Amino acid sequence: MIKVGIIGATGYAGAEAARLLYSHPGAQVIAYGSRSGEGKAFASSYGNMRNLIADPLTPEDLSELAEQADVIFTATPQGYLSSVLTEEILEKTKIIDLSADFRFSDLATYESWYGLTHGSPELLKKAVYGLCELHRDQIRGACLVANPGCYTTCSILSLYPLLEAGLIDPSTIIIDAKSGTSGAGRGAKVDNLFCEVNENIKAYGVATHRHTPEIEEQLSLAGAGKVVVSFTPHLVPMNRGILVTAYASLTRGGEEEIRAAYEKRYGQETFIRLLGNESAQTRFVEGSNYVDIGWKADPRTGRVIVMAALDNLVKGAAGQAVQNMNLMFGLPEETGLLQPPMFP
Amino acid sequence: MIKVGIIGATGYAGAEAARLLYSHPGAQVIAYGSRSGEGKAFASSYGNMRNLIADPLTPEDLSELAEQADVIFTATPQGYLSSVLTEEILEKTKIIDLSADFRFSDLATYESWYGLTHGSPELLKKAVYGLCELHRDQIRGACLVANPGCYTTCSILSLYPLLEAGLIDPSTIIIDAKSGTSGAGRGAKVDNLFCEVNENIKAYGVATHRHTPEIEEQLSLAGAGKVVVSFTPHLVPMNRGILVTAYASLTRGGEEEIRAAYEKRYGQETFIRLLGNESAQTRFVEGSNYVDIGWKADPRTGRVIVMAALDNLVKGAAGQAVQNMNLMFGLPEETGLLQPPMFP
Amino acid sequence: MIKVGIIGATGYAGAEAARLLYSHPGAQVIAYGSRSGEGKAFASSYGNMRNLIADPLTPEDLSELAEQADVIFTATPQGYLSSVLTEEILEKTKIIDLSADFRFSDLATYESWYGLTHGSPELLKKAVYGLCELHRDQIRGACLVANPGCYTTCSILSLYPLLEAGLIDPSTIIIDAKSGTSGAGRGAKVDNLFCEVNENIKAYGVATHRHTPEIEEQLSLAGAGKVVVSFTPHLVPMNRGILVTAYASLTRGGEEEIRAAYEKRYGQETFIRLLGNESAQTRFVEGSNYVDIGWKADPRTGRVIVMAALDNLVKGAAGQAVQNMNLMFGLPEETGLLQPPMFP
Amino acid sequence: MIKVGIIGATGYAGAEAARLLYSHPGAQVIAYGSRSGEGKAFASSYGNMRNLIADPLTPEDLSELAEQADVIFTATPQGYLSSVLTEEILEKTKIIDLSADFRFSDLATYESWYGLTHGSPELLKKAVYGLCELHRDQIRGACLVANPGCYTTCSILSLYPLLEAGLIDPSTIIIDAKSGTSGAGRGAKVDNLFCEVNENIKAYGVATHRHTPEIEEQLSLAGAGKVVVSFTPHLVPMNRGILVTAYASLTRGGEEEIRAAYEKRYGQETFIRLLGNESAQTRFVEGSNYVDIGWKADPRTGRVIVMAALDNLVKGAAGQAVQNMNLMFGLPEETGLLQPPMFP
Repeated sequence: MIKVGIIGATGYAGAEAARLLYSHPGAQVIAYGSRSGEGKAFASSYGNMRNLIADPLTPEDLSELAEQADVIFTATPQGYLSSVLTEEILEKTKIIDLSADFRFSDLATYESWYGLTHGSPELLKKAVYGLCELHRDQIRGACLVANPGCYTTCSILSLYPLLEAGLIDPSTIIIDAKSGTSGAGRGAKVDNLFCEVNENIKAYGVATHRHTPEIEEQLSLAGAGKVVVSFTPHLVPMNRGILVTAYASLTRGGEEEIRAAYEKRYGQETFIRLLGNESAQTRFVEGSNYVDIGWKADPRTGRVIVMAALDNLVKGAAGQAVQNMNLMFGLPEETGLLQPPMFP
Repeated sequence: MIKVGIIGATGYAGAEAARLLYSHPGAQVIAYGSRSGEGKAFASSYGNMRNLIADPLTPEDLSELAEQADVIFTATPQGYLSSVLTEEILEKTKIIDLSADFRFSDLATYESWYGLTHGSPELLKKAVYGLCELHRDQIRGACLVANPGCYTTCSILSLYPLLEAGLIDPSTIIIDAKSGTSGAGRGAKVDNLFCEVNENIKAYGVATHRHTPEIEEQLSLAGAGKVVVSFTPHLVPMNRGILVTAYASLTRGGEEEIRAAYEKRYGQETFIRLLGNESAQTRFVEGSNYVDIGWKADPRTGRVIVMAALDNLVKGAAGQAVQNMNLMFGLPEETGLLQPPMFP
Repeated sequence: MIKVGIIGATGYAGAEAARLLYSHPGAQVIAYGSRSGEGKAFASSYGNMRNLIADPLTPEDLSELAEQADVIFTATPQGYLSSVLTEEILEKTKIIDLSADFRFSDLATYESWYGLTHGSPELLKKAVYGLCELHRDQIRGACLVANPGCYTTCSILSLYPLLEAGLIDPSTIIIDAKSGTSGAGRGAKVDNLFCEVNENIKAYGVATHRHTPEIEEQLSLAGAGKVVVSFTPHLVPMNRGILVTAYASLTRGGEEEIRAAYEKRYGQETFIRLLGNESAQTRFVEGSNYVDIGWKADPRTGRVIVMAALDNLVKGAAGQAVQNMNLMFGLPEETGLLQPPMFP
Repeated sequence: MIKVGIIGATGYAGAEAARLLYSHPGAQVIAYGSRSGEGKAFASSYGNMRNLIADPLTPEDLSELAEQADVIFTATPQGYLSSVLTEEILEKTKIIDLSADFRFSDLATYESWYGLTHGSPELLKKAVYGLCELHRDQIRGACLVANPGCYTTCSILSLYPLLEAGLIDPSTIIIDAKSGTSGAGRGAKVDNLFCEVNENIKAYGVATHRHTPEIEEQLSLAGAGKVVVSFTPHLVPMNRGILVTAYASLTRGGEEEIRAAYEKRYGQETFIRLLGNESAQTRFVEGSNYVDIGWKADPRTGRVIVMAALDNLVKGAAGQAVQNMNLMFGLPEETGLLQPPMFP
């Protein structure tokens, strides 16, 4: 039984990890860390887990938790983990970080896009980027996994096979992304009140959103050269789900080559479902670790349009963290993650 | 492995049964019957199950299915089952009926509230009312289970212990119920379009809703005399969930006696969670088989207010059907039903 | 041109007053007071009014505003107005208070239900309860109008005619009310975040909500004796609207007498629409000052069920305040309030 | 008083015209035509207008209506108007067509994208494209106005000034559009049921949506050469509103030139509000005829991102039709259209 500690257990992503681990046959949560809720029951913050999780919320002490846990999920604000992580801690426990602190190979990129000073740059080289479908082998041996962002997972998985196959021009990529509101977190902000979000759609972080360089770094690994993207996130009045609509100019080929590229890369992937020319829809992945990807070649414009959906709290956060944990501990990758999406 | 046939697999309740049985370790769906979709893949109607359920939709032939299935779930319109069911079929297979056809001990009640002629009244005596928490023992031996309605399950479970303990006056019960829109089914009706339901709440079926006599019959079994209730359902702009707010005049006792009555009746129940003076909330039972029940004694008015929530497609339909199946086949009652509620 | 000052202009009710007064042919807002936004443009908080209202937010100084304004709308927290109001101010300006400070004839009721000490009890006798359809004549001559609460307006209008006509037993009244989320205000609270409210319905303030005594005081004026009610509010995932479902035992009569009672009382009212046996629906009053009232006599239970809807920000707050203003200044009561409801 | 006939009065766009004309000081609806509702009251389909519009629904007879009406709004399916319109009718009355029948100068474009045979191609040359901000002068003298589509209005207004100023490369335009569900109409379709749309976002009509050629034709008039666009519409779980996020490569200039281009074109427009670098939001135009446009130059990618919002039923349909009517009859263009947006 893997002993898991969660730090940041009362945010939506941390609590989703708790929900998923509750049903995981090979893991057990031993501590629900929370700065704010300390002492109260976890279930007092998440009534869905009433009677199911009896544990209290505990202080967020990474070093102490490292003594007991086999792995720690940090679902914490940017900058937290880098400020407390040490070599010693990593010798005692594994870490899966849901923040951005260890997602970049380049320190300067992190510091300039996040406006933070990284507290432990010497540990960056230990980190593996936790997008399982791309970095499975490295994740298996890692002690520190940087779990990707929600927009990022969806964007990278959408476009990687096309770049890898040389089908699209890396300078023409535009990613128009739409997210449910749980991605904005559980903080008490006027902008996220029901009446502000409901009956509305808006773009935000236009041309400056911090998931941009993460997408660019990973897509540049596909071998088609350095990728620079326009990335525009939007807030949608729904709880969960991310839809990415991505555009790129085709350099060659069409429908058939596109399909072949996806099938080659993802044909054997449990959690990726290829939809052909159909649009992905967030309702069909809700609550699950699946990613749905559809596409359409448009001869009129010479572009391909890719439409991909995932659940931002599962494959975009806690589910992927569990998938990473499974890999790191030698369990079958799907363990505890095969719940089908819930619709309606 | 229990072989299950579903008739009406493309309605929301039938499809929810498919979703739950997909994860059930001791059962396997052998036929997804659908009048409308015949020949197409089940997953073409329910994209959430893409790649997970490969089966096609099949004709709805109860007799034929009875030859192969150990149990058949009928998630069909009122009147269907009673028109095709026979003694012979019941000798070959068990039936769990999600319609109202076999819910009433009194034929006249069914025929007058539903405006239908019952096609097989001679089989009524074989039917057991499938509210597991009240009729567990009878269900175990049944071949025909009448799975309760969604409003009904929530209403009956809310009030039964108080009547049983003689704490409330059976002539004063008012049940104000609120339902998510999946309860209205997947039929193409203007009234259920997004723009008609969204940003709206309304009552419907006032003083005439067909779940009323079902609630009354079951609550009358509590031993406090014949129960007649005011029952008012409302349509709420959300997908899933029923909230019952029930009012009754206290005949004696208060907070303590109320709590004792609930704990006596439900203290050992896996799927009932007692919340004390807190209101139940539909978000905390979504996707699960749990029923949350809270209450408040009000000395100013001499009434008790009970607030209970369940997921209308799970405990209010398909989950309860699975729970009944488990009982009928001697499996642990909770098998395949322990997914925690999903929030947000 | 009536010069209007608004205090609390950045709350939802205050801003709705600004929206309504923008289109009012006989009034003009001269100050948008806001504790929090001071100095910024009103439209920076309410982007809908961009280019339409150019004014800045100003400090909330009641005395100073009284020098310039003909009438002041106070859309402020409970306790504010009573703590700053004086006789002198009332000699200079009229006040329409959207808080509860002056809604009760009995000081003790206010202080015990609100847990506040009233700052100016000597002014209570000057206040008129601003439910136009019931107190029109007194409002005309008032200098201080206590604008009713949103739940209250809907509840009182629903039941008053039946009590007045002696058709219902005042001891049997149960009011089950459902509100859109704008009623919870624009404060940054976790409970009102999109993901907490969406896909949920819950009761709150059960047996203790502060609109209860206000409803009871006003309904007791109907002449059927002292009224004590069970009042249960619920939070619904929609922006605007209140639906009241009210239950009471009939003392005599039925459908015909009920209809006659409503027509006698409301037959000439512009803003009350009688629906007969249909349920009111919040979508059909959205954005307007109309109140829709339907009812159903139920011979089975001897009860009447009344279903009424209004827009909590209009007839339940700012619209009624404008209606009161029109009365106080001798304008036709409907001035600026005849926008039809917006659907969908 | 302009006498207006509406054909298709029970669709969302037709009913919105009825709502807007109800408050219009210079026009009066004399007939509410509806194929389906004939004989019933208009308000029986649109409860919001109860007591306000007493008229019945009438047959849809264009010729007969032409005898009485000064102008007819046809809010009808594609192909209807072209199949019944004649020169004679146009001599008797003016027509504002909300369908696509007369939006294209090129017959072949219409017939190939819509898959219809045009019934009166000889009248195409009489039609003026009713985008008031671009074709005001021609509209004034027109007898037949082709009212633009909702996506179209938003897309064209977003990009026209940039093309006109030669700031963007016409071959690089990508329009990612998001629409509320009222755009899908009031037809009873499973795809538009509440439970199918709620908690979901999806693309549809990818690379084939019929508003594409309309956008291209109008944008090509800007003088920057023939425009070919990628246009992708999405369905969003909200009632009203369109958000367009448009991308194009800058050929020269940046923030300053962009702003100047918008101000030059729209500086004097009542219904266009320029937001600078802010994203437009649908909530801030709801219920109104306003179009909000924001933009962001992105030096990293050399692109401009434009974000524009309007209410699809008002500026995207019925409001624009009224604006056209005002122009055609010599009224001030804003008559009856100055209601501020409603938020929340």
